[in-house]
Amino acid sequence: VAKKVRVGILNVTGYAGLELARLLYQHPHVELAAVTGRSEAGKPLGEVFPTLDDLGLTITAEVQGKVDFIFSALPHKASAEALLPFLRQGLRAVDISADFRLRDAAEYKQWYQVVHPAPELLKEAAYGLTELNKDAICGAQVIANPGCYPTSAILALAPALKEGLVEPDIIVDSKSGVSGAGRGLSLGAHFSEVNETVSAYGLEGHRHLPEITQELRRLAPGGKLRVTFVPHLIPMTRGILSTCYAPLVESRLGSGLASAQSELAAVYRDFYRDQPFVRVVSAPPQTKHTNGSNYCVIYPTVDPRSGRLVVISCLDNLVKGAAGQAIQNMNVMLGFEETAGLLGLGLWP
Amino acid sequence: VAKKVRVGILNVTGYAGLELARLLYQHPHVELAAVTGRSEAGKPLGEVFPTLDDLGLTITAEVQGKVDFIFSALPHKASAEALLPFLRQGLRAVDISADFRLRDAAEYKQWYQVVHPAPELLKEAAYGLTELNKDAICGAQVIANPGCYPTSAILALAPALKEGLVEPDIIVDSKSGVSGAGRGLSLGAHFSEVNETVSAYGLEGHRHLPEITQELRRLAPGGKLRVTFVPHLIPMTRGILSTCYAPLVESRLGSGLASAQSELAAVYRDFYRDQPFVRVVSAPPQTKHTNGSNYCVIYPTVDPRSGRLVVISCLDNLVKGAAGQAIQNMNVMLGFEETAGLLGLGLWP
Amino acid sequence: VAKKVRVGILNVTGYAGLELARLLYQHPHVELAAVTGRSEAGKPLGEVFPTLDDLGLTITAEVQGKVDFIFSALPHKASAEALLPFLRQGLRAVDISADFRLRDAAEYKQWYQVVHPAPELLKEAAYGLTELNKDAICGAQVIANPGCYPTSAILALAPALKEGLVEPDIIVDSKSGVSGAGRGLSLGAHFSEVNETVSAYGLEGHRHLPEITQELRRLAPGGKLRVTFVPHLIPMTRGILSTCYAPLVESRLGSGLASAQSELAAVYRDFYRDQPFVRVVSAPPQTKHTNGSNYCVIYPTVDPRSGRLVVISCLDNLVKGAAGQAIQNMNVMLGFEETAGLLGLGLWP
Amino acid sequence: VAKKVRVGILNVTGYAGLELARLLYQHPHVELAAVTGRSEAGKPLGEVFPTLDDLGLTITAEVQGKVDFIFSALPHKASAEALLPFLRQGLRAVDISADFRLRDAAEYKQWYQVVHPAPELLKEAAYGLTELNKDAICGAQVIANPGCYPTSAILALAPALKEGLVEPDIIVDSKSGVSGAGRGLSLGAHFSEVNETVSAYGLEGHRHLPEITQELRRLAPGGKLRVTFVPHLIPMTRGILSTCYAPLVESRLGSGLASAQSELAAVYRDFYRDQPFVRVVSAPPQTKHTNGSNYCVIYPTVDPRSGRLVVISCLDNLVKGAAGQAIQNMNVMLGFEETAGLLGLGLWP
Repeated sequence: VAKKVRVGILNVTGYAGLELARLLYQHPHVELAAVTGRSEAGKPLGEVFPTLDDLGLTITAEVQGKVDFIFSALPHKASAEALLPFLRQGLRAVDISADFRLRDAAEYKQWYQVVHPAPELLKEAAYGLTELNKDAICGAQVIANPGCYPTSAILALAPALKEGLVEPDIIVDSKSGVSGAGRGLSLGAHFSEVNETVSAYGLEGHRHLPEITQELRRLAPGGKLRVTFVPHLIPMTRGILSTCYAPLVESRLGSGLASAQSELAAVYRDFYRDQPFVRVVSAPPQTKHTNGSNYCVIYPTVDPRSGRLVVISCLDNLVKGAAGQAIQNMNVMLGFEETAGLLGLGLWP
Repeated sequence: VAKKVRVGILNVTGYAGLELARLLYQHPHVELAAVTGRSEAGKPLGEVFPTLDDLGLTITAEVQGKVDFIFSALPHKASAEALLPFLRQGLRAVDISADFRLRDAAEYKQWYQVVHPAPELLKEAAYGLTELNKDAICGAQVIANPGCYPTSAILALAPALKEGLVEPDIIVDSKSGVSGAGRGLSLGAHFSEVNETVSAYGLEGHRHLPEITQELRRLAPGGKLRVTFVPHLIPMTRGILSTCYAPLVESRLGSGLASAQSELAAVYRDFYRDQPFVRVVSAPPQTKHTNGSNYCVIYPTVDPRSGRLVVISCLDNLVKGAAGQAIQNMNVMLGFEETAGLLGLGLWP
Repeated sequence: VAKKVRVGILNVTGYAGLELARLLYQHPHVELAAVTGRSEAGKPLGEVFPTLDDLGLTITAEVQGKVDFIFSALPHKASAEALLPFLRQGLRAVDISADFRLRDAAEYKQWYQVVHPAPELLKEAAYGLTELNKDAICGAQVIANPGCYPTSAILALAPALKEGLVEPDIIVDSKSGVSGAGRGLSLGAHFSEVNETVSAYGLEGHRHLPEITQELRRLAPGGKLRVTFVPHLIPMTRGILSTCYAPLVESRLGSGLASAQSELAAVYRDFYRDQPFVRVVSAPPQTKHTNGSNYCVIYPTVDPRSGRLVVISCLDNLVKGAAGQAIQNMNVMLGFEETAGLLGLGLWP
Repeated sequence: VAKKVRVGILNVTGYAGLELARLLYQHPHVELAAVTGRSEAGKPLGEVFPTLDDLGLTITAEVQGKVDFIFSALPHKASAEALLPFLRQGLRAVDISADFRLRDAAEYKQWYQVVHPAPELLKEAAYGLTELNKDAICGAQVIANPGCYPTSAILALAPALKEGLVEPDIIVDSKSGVSGAGRGLSLGAHFSEVNETVSAYGLEGHRHLPEITQELRRLAPGGKLRVTFVPHLIPMTRGILSTCYAPLVESRLGSGLASAQSELAAVYRDFYRDQPFVRVVSAPPQTKHTNGSNYCVIYPTVDPRSGRLVVISCLDNLVKGAAGQAIQNMNVMLGFEETAGLLGLGLWP
């Protein structure tokens, strides 16, 4: 039996951190050896999160003892700062924060209003949208785990953009559950304020927009890419559904609606043929189809009257949109089966 | 004191019918004299709907006694059929069903798969989007009360289209609470199936699409209008939020984002200046801002990077999207203050 | 036309304060003249609460101008302190906080951990459970508006206790929506933590217990009253359902289940015969039957196997459990019809 | 490697059946070989339930091929009828329906209004509350899997009753998510009717009452047991919280509250010491602590003022209340580790 990899989680007390712990509990090749969290340091993990009681761990302020691999679920800036010492020791890491997502330190500063703590690492980090970037992920020391919205938007649009089926004039209208806003308190996540209502936000520019734009541009280089991204908050805990719109390039798909539809579906199925966690489906999916699982489910279609591409994608923002994809990336980095620890089925209903 | 108008509701047992009864209870010029409902005929209204107990009415199979005005909340086809005898007696009516919304009987047949029961009336009916059509509503015998989605979409886009600010290339991405699906049972409205999930539907063409297209075309005649409409079901009871997208016509708004924004807001404020139930706001609204009230709240903005118009509109699908607008139309028809019976504030939280 | 009474609300920015403003907007004899709120002072009320925009008011730090009557929706201690100057000027007031509910300053200190700011007023204040205490309310200067749980529990049990039908050995198991916890931020009211879950709390003794006990003792003096009260938090915004249990005194109700049931119902109907806001019903009610309205709906029954009284009561915690009852008390104090401003029907669905 | 046991599920299309399939997918000793469902026969399982797509199964009308073990998730009566042929062939089975729960065919008829299809088997079946009945479960051919409410109530009360700490005068006030009502359509499970509301039901006698009474009587024989059981429906999908009340027998627990509390906790901890799926906790639990897992979490306490025992228990009605416990029983019957296939942690948030 191979020795298990000893893994640490920085900031287990946020939703991404706690979801990492839940998933790693069943990972066949990993031992969760350390979980940190300043505010709750010293407490048994099971006291703070009763669902994690079986892990038998205690939260510490800093990683104690030797670990072989690090996940950071800290907020941006704090995350890069906390990872630096581990990286200098040669450890490999997945960073769930935004710190290594944007290639350009100036753009990072513009969107996050802080100076990047380690700009020299930006070029070395790999963008961890596993399906699109496996080679780079394999060899990188640090992975920038994608944002939840970008994961849903980029996976939805990649086949069409890459195959030149659409004009680079894109609208992403996303609907997210409230857990995406994290465990920090705010009036906008207060039950009585957010239940039974829906709202758009980030209309002046959400921080996930430059990330979406950067990665879509890599798929369709040269073009003059225009992206409008409008996220919405809806009254549920988990899940993101993105509805993506783009004009179809004329005469790239078969004439006649049925033929265009089936060619489109074939392009998508082919594109994701070898990807264990992307499922191209033939009926509009729901977010709850992915509840607790690492799937991204995608439904591409042609709007029959306007000749527009419409793609619906669904995922669990805390799994494929955060902790699950982080583990998928670790699996690729460490040469495990890509699906290790991620085989649990979604919960329905 | 003027004599109160005696009003009847056909099919009080659906959500639109019951909301009519709730609102009419406080209408100063109306006496609710008859409420029908086949399946519950003979039962006290307060037994079927405890919140309506104070009305002291009994549900009957047919309207009994004399009424002066009729609301129909029956399903399509049944509605026109049931209204015909009243119209022949000269009564005026508001039809909440889809029966008089499409001007063209062939289009009606195409979308509703039934032959229209009274095609001769299609030309006489007025489309009851009160803000846009007051003159016609004043004089009409029968009003086609708009669908909930069309109300939110058309009010959101009318000023921009009418003023020629946008290209006629429109996307309407709507999010609706479950009450829009009505009181009839279906797996898609079963609590455990619809809670904690979001889904798109009607991608092949929702019945509200031809209605949106017909009315937007009246606002921007001549143009080659393209409309993509994607409704979504979200886990709440009441409310519709529509996010509408259209390319701005170049150099119609001031150069510079701030100036474009403020000109846009001015156009919208001006357009709805005299409308008591449209509120143009300067921050993104939520559906719960309209919970139980007849307001449609609209936030127009310019996407700073793509130069696209984005308009958010919110309303309560059972009030401004159905029963409230029906009463607003009746008020206009009968010469009452437009706001009579509709002054109650929304419920928050 | 009589001059309207000028009313002020202290702390309009909590849920009880905002609900007062919503309801007073339609009160025929009241003009809402001042609304205070430290944290939002200077802002238009409609900016903070869009549903209240039609009131056209601005939030101020202190009451400005002359008012004739005061509602306080401040937290305990702050409330009595803020009311004192108005009371000294001779104004009458309804206090929605807990400050005047317990007759005994020592008990107040024990449960609220602060010294009462105005113990001399405790004997003069009337406990504002309108149905049970109308005479005292009529003449009092200051009304202690009851807590939401006590209102539901006491109205449910009063007829049975007063008529000696039950032993004074009582269990109140209450289920409340989250708005009862107020608008202040806490992890326990954070959407992702409270959605899709139910929990009991206050098992060591909830602050509403001494209030329930004090008032039930007035109904059944002399007895050795034992009350167990367990509140639960459930994932909805508004509403309280209390399930109350007590052993029936033998041979007080007719022998045979049917006869016991109908005698019990008769006792309850009779007890509340003249009360406009208590509805004794013959089928188990739901909290949503009272959504937005001032009703308390009560269903008394006999458990056929154990011979126990079981009473279900439902109300909207922000209306009959707070702002609605406060207005009902004001109506009684000022000699208005008891129902003035409170006639709006509940929202369903 | 031992050969896997081939298992069939009768009626995979209800919530208990589908949850069985979800859990068995990761069971190390089981191969799910057949899933039946009349209404959806012929369809891929993943088409009907996308979360189950990885199972790669097709729904059939009847079990096809050889199976070694049967779970039935059929409705009562149909379940016993469908199991009979398998039992006659010597197969062992867990029946999730109510058919083998009540020992007495006459009582079955009284509560279920049908004649029992196999009364001769009632004595041979073991009641599958695993923690209390392991010996009988080991040897039985057919297991009556307990109802969701009885599981929560009996586990909450067993230690106190068995140790003689309480009088046999019991109240069980339960709060259940809507999935307990199953996948069948009804107005009472229609989203808009059940969201944002809470109601009590079954006040005249719920079918789980005789089951609770039968099993509690086995724990406290001889006594005159009185049980009042009031279930409530609350707006969430999964989970049951039961609040159980009983008078403490005097002087059985230490004098003084703290000492009584700690003795009580010790009794409970001791009682469940060797049970992997019962967790006795020291703070009030929430249903979401068990979301998707097989735990029953129990918090016993003493009401300080009334001297009453209050016990809170939480479980996931579809796991420990149905499919999970069914697998736990199969594990015991077949000599597997009791926890096989049931190690996944609960989902939070």
